Amino acid sequence: MRILLNNADIVTVNEENEVLKGYDIIVEENKIGVIKQSSGFLLQGEFNEVIDCTNKIVMPGFINCHTHTPMTLFRNYADDLNLHDWLYKNMFPLEEKLTPDMCYAASKLSIIEMIKTGTTTFNDMYFYMNETERVIGEAGMMAMIGVSASNKTDPDFKKSIMLYEKFKDNKNIKINLAPHSIYTCTEKYLKNICNLSKEYNIPVHIHVSETKKEVEDCIRENGITPVKYLESLGLFDRPVIAAHCVHVTDDDIDILKRYNVNVVHNPASNMKLASGIAPITKMIDKGVNVCLGTDGAGSNNNLDMLKELRMASYLQKVSSYDPTAFNVDTALKVATVNGAKALGIENLGQVKEGYKADLIIIDANKTYYYPKTNIKSQIVYSGNAEDIETVIINGKIVMKGRQMLTMDEEKVKYEAQKAYEKLIEN
Amino acid sequence: MRILLNNADIVTVNEENEVLKGYDIIVEENKIGVIKQSSGFLLQGEFNEVIDCTNKIVMPGFINCHTHTPMTLFRNYADDLNLHDWLYKNMFPLEEKLTPDMCYAASKLSIIEMIKTGTTTFNDMYFYMNETERVIGEAGMMAMIGVSASNKTDPDFKKSIMLYEKFKDNKNIKINLAPHSIYTCTEKYLKNICNLSKEYNIPVHIHVSETKKEVEDCIRENGITPVKYLESLGLFDRPVIAAHCVHVTDDDIDILKRYNVNVVHNPASNMKLASGIAPITKMIDKGVNVCLGTDGAGSNNNLDMLKELRMASYLQKVSSYDPTAFNVDTALKVATVNGAKALGIENLGQVKEGYKADLIIIDANKTYYYPKTNIKSQIVYSGNAEDIETVIINGKIVMKGRQMLTMDEEKVKYEAQKAYEKLIEN
Repeated sequence: MRILLNNADIVTVNEENEVLKGYDIIVEENKIGVIKQSSGFLLQGEFNEVIDCTNKIVMPGFINCHTHTPMTLFRNYADDLNLHDWLYKNMFPLEEKLTPDMCYAASKLSIIEMIKTGTTTFNDMYFYMNETERVIGEAGMMAMIGVSASNKTDPDFKKSIMLYEKFKDNKNIKINLAPHSIYTCTEKYLKNICNLSKEYNIPVHIHVSETKKEVEDCIRENGITPVKYLESLGLFDRPVIAAHCVHVTDDDIDILKRYNVNVVHNPASNMKLASGIAPITKMIDKGVNVCLGTDGAGSNNNLDMLKELRMASYLQKVSSYDPTAFNVDTALKVATVNGAKALGIENLGQVKEGYKADLIIIDANKTYYYPKTNIKSQIVYSGNAEDIETVIINGKIVMKGRQMLTMDEEKVKYEAQKAYEKLIEN
Repeated sequence: MRILLNNADIVTVNEENEVLKGYDIIVEENKIGVIKQSSGFLLQGEFNEVIDCTNKIVMPGFINCHTHTPMTLFRNYADDLNLHDWLYKNMFPLEEKLTPDMCYAASKLSIIEMIKTGTTTFNDMYFYMNETERVIGEAGMMAMIGVSASNKTDPDFKKSIMLYEKFKDNKNIKINLAPHSIYTCTEKYLKNICNLSKEYNIPVHIHVSETKKEVEDCIRENGITPVKYLESLGLFDRPVIAAHCVHVTDDDIDILKRYNVNVVHNPASNMKLASGIAPITKMIDKGVNVCLGTDGAGSNNNLDMLKELRMASYLQKVSSYDPTAFNVDTALKVATVNGAKALGIENLGQVKEGYKADLIIIDANKTYYYPKTNIKSQIVYSGNAEDIETVIINGKIVMKGRQMLTMDEEKVKYEAQKAYEKLIEN
């Protein structure tokens, strides 16, 4: 399979943050083969598909490093509530009633939304991940997944290990161990997670210091912050993807840096649930690998990484009183290469020869892209996910002209609606 | 002219925040005539146009209470800079070089963007407002406009008064006096503005307490905050639309309430320029009429009210640590009825019989509207301006199926690009 992207403007997200104007990209199988200045003529050679990218922007697909895929079923269901009412009166009771079929329907809805908003790889922790995995395969998506685990939901790690055994040889799926948090897992449980992570050589994905309450409770019970507590358990000796990290101290940040913990920023969820503002600029300045996630659609209420990166940028600027903070280059990196690094996937997240062909093509001809000035600002500050015309994952076109090629979007919407109605009628 | 909107779900934004499901709306000339439960059959009577609104949401058009229309020419031009460099090294030098032709081209670009993102009325202050007014007429838009005035730019108020004299009988235009700010206008100048406002019976539109520096300078020079300073000059005895009000004290808020000053919140601009977080929830709780604006595209970088109201909601929640703050009903009100009140336009901003027919029709069938749960949350938290299919202003359809009916969008983009290139080449 060879695809030619002809005469594109490329936002490479490479080390030099280069923008290349008027370049051709040849996709060979699942990799980016050649990138060269466009001659204005079509390149020689046989292509299965040629896409005219004149007046279009090509960039790496987004990597959503923290979400809960089936939670789209709860979208807009319980907004404007305090965290306790949201979680204990709405989310947890609904989660109790979820069935595999519902999660399958919801995962389809989520993955279509992710692809249509330019996400090409995501990192998940939730229940019924077998169902989500089915959809990943059908959609042609890439992901890292893990069973949301705690003493209550997966007491003997059986579900987590079964998931690992089932997908350890799957090329499109990576597996993580996903202890939910320090407040749902005992010390012993978390220590066992460390051992399992070592034994099976898989990373850990966990919520860390999301709310003030979590930190205050931890300090009261253990005398130290959640970050120090997890360090003391040896968790950070393993590769860790730590979601949220909103309430972290300077000492915490030093620890996160020292152990190369990957921090996932989820600004929309943190804002909407009033969890707080994470000191992301400080973390980036200290060299922590910060990436970006949407969290679940129960608290966001979209899975739209472009919204998320704009939100992240605006929030960091205002909270640090520094308009130069979290500039467009930083925004583009956290949403792409930094995510690839966090998930431990090599050669992903840039438009570069030899890198994975996970690309999005953006229609830069919408009215709000005018006048044409700074191409990165256009994307980060003015762009909308609806401008993403085409999505290529693993060298395959999965969406073209806003139409999903791998899934029946109308059917998916219908079935998600039915699943939701079944969920709330019980 | 009679238009039937058939079988709509209506977000009324009325006093009871009612949502009406499956209703017909008859638009008679420039007003909403009848709203009645849909029979499932087409109503009797002759209509110039019937729009099937099944699976669609009808709501009032947005009212953008603070923008600088021609500034779209500076979109994405100078991002990620500190305020001083942005303003003095980029915006002011460019503004010096603006010509009426450039402002005409830029106003067209802005007004298309506003209409396509659901804004039906806006409030402006800038230079060359005669050019903006031409576009308002051509586009079928509604607006309040004023010449951005200061000792330097309009020393003897001639431009402001000429604008008033020219448009005082225009039904689609209201005029304001627009002293730029306390730091560009002397005390004497501002007092004269008060007198003119009284003499001509027109409201005042001014930037107030946008940055810490403005407030600190004012306290150093006058011993009081900008709000108290403007009160002392008698400005608040007049109807005032005060943009930003980021750095206001509790005393300031009491003053704003006592004089019925209308406050325009501009969250995206305040965040991106790192001006600060306005205590909007406190103002609303104290009964201040808060409305919403995008500010200019030099600092936003869109004129998209739906982005703005989501940003406002998320920012208030996180900054007050209260997820119930700035809920969907508040968000919808600040973007519609509160704006109408601020601009002094009666019977505007709700879907109600006898009200002005300024309506938008939203396609609620996009994937991210599923599952269908809370219709207001769908709009505020999940919706995108691209979902707005049809816009009716003054009883006339100005956009239908995303196509502008009153303007040539391709030509406008081309001419805006040319204007920009001319601007920066000099």
